[in-house]
Amino acid sequence: MKSIPKSLSELIESFKLLPGIGEKNAVRLSFATLNLKEDQVTKFSEAVKNIKLNIKKCKICNNLTENSEICDICNDKNRNNDILCVVENTKDLIHFEESNAFKGKYHILEGLISPLEGVNPDDIKINQLINRIKDENIKEVILALNMSIEGETTSLYILKLLEGMNVSVSKIAAGIPVNADMEYLDSLTIQKAIEGRNKLS
Amino acid sequence: MKSIPKSLSELIESFKLLPGIGEKNAVRLSFATLNLKEDQVTKFSEAVKNIKLNIKKCKICNNLTENSEICDICNDKNRNNDILCVVENTKDLIHFEESNAFKGKYHILEGLISPLEGVNPDDIKINQLINRIKDENIKEVILALNMSIEGETTSLYILKLLEGMNVSVSKIAAGIPVNADMEYLDSLTIQKAIEGRNKLS
Repeated sequence: MKSIPKSLSELIESFKLLPGIGEKNAVRLSFATLNLKEDQVTKFSEAVKNIKLNIKKCKICNNLTENSEICDICNDKNRNNDILCVVENTKDLIHFEESNAFKGKYHILEGLISPLEGVNPDDIKINQLINRIKDENIKEVILALNMSIEGETTSLYILKLLEGMNVSVSKIAAGIPVNADMEYLDSLTIQKAIEGRNKLS
Repeated sequence: MKSIPKSLSELIESFKLLPGIGEKNAVRLSFATLNLKEDQVTKFSEAVKNIKLNIKKCKICNNLTENSEICDICNDKNRNNDILCVVENTKDLIHFEESNAFKGKYHILEGLISPLEGVNPDDIKINQLINRIKDENIKEVILALNMSIEGETTSLYILKLLEGMNVSVSKIAAGIPVNADMEYLDSLTIQKAIEGRNKLS
C-alpha cells in the first residue's frame, strides 16, 4: 500500500503479527489507534514496551511475575504450601484464581504432551514439577488440564511418574457446566458426567 | 483481575480502547504480544508511539502525511491537477489509490452530513473544498461518497453549492459489484443498477 504513510503501515504490520488479525483488521485497528487521544497512545506504546521489559517467569511455578524472580502467588504466605494445582498455562491459572476456589500453589506446565505436534514430556515443565513435589514436600497434586486427548495423556503421564511417591493425586471433575443447556452438550461430556455421578441417597 | 501483573493489565486496558475489542479479546492479544519476539515488541511499541508523533493531516486535502505539511499525492507533479475526487475519509482514499483507477487529486471531507447524528455541513470540510475548487481552478469534481442517505445528502449539498460555478460535477456509478452473486444483493442496488444501465446496441 504505497499511499499509506510509513508510520501507519509499520503499525499495520505490527498488528498483523497478532493471531487472528488479518490485513483488513490491522488497518482498522491502526486507524483506531490514530484516533485515540495523545495520552492513550503514549500509554499504549509504553504498555507494549513494558510487557517484555518488566514481565518475567516465576522461577518456581512459571507464572508471570512483575519485576521479581518469584511470583505473588508463590510469595504468598497465606496460601497452602501442601497442595499443587497443575495447569497448562498462565491463562488457566488466572481463570482458577478468579474462581477463588483454590488456595494452594500452582505449577504451570507451559503446554501439554502432544505426539502429533511433536511436543514430548521433556518439552514441557514436568521434570520441574516432579522436583518441586519432592523438594517442597507436596502432599496433594490436583491435575487441572483440559479434557482433550493431550490433556488426558499429560495427566496420565504425570500420574505414572508419581506412582510410589508419597503424594495424593486427583483430577478436577468432568461433567455438565453450570448453566449449560443440556441440548448443546456433546455426548462425551454427558458420558463423563454420568461416570462421575455423585450418590445423593 | 488481581492475579495479572500490572504491565499485562495495562496492555489489556490499552487494547480495550480499540473498537470491537472486548475484555477476552484484549487478554488474548496481550498474551500474544507477550509471546512475540523482543524486536517485534520493540517495533510494535515504536509504531504505536510514532503514529501520533509523525503522522499529520495534509493542509490541502486532509489526507494523512508523514513528517510534512503536504501529502505525497498533493505533492505529486505527475497527477492531474484539474480533477478532484471527493471522498469521506482516508480509508476510502486508500481504496481508490489501490484500484489505480484515478490519477487526479483528492479531497477528504472527514465525514458526511448527518442531521440525525448532528453532523452539519460546517462540521466537515465542505467550505475548504469549495475554496479549493475556486483557488486551484478545478475543472472536474467526482463525488465518490457512500450510497447511503448521508452520502447522497452530502453529494446533493455539494452539487447545490457548485451550481453556477464553472466546474463539471459527476458521481461514481452505482450498480452491481464485480463478482457479486445477484442472489445476495439488496433491491436498492438492483434498482440503481437498472436505472444506470448502459446501452449496448
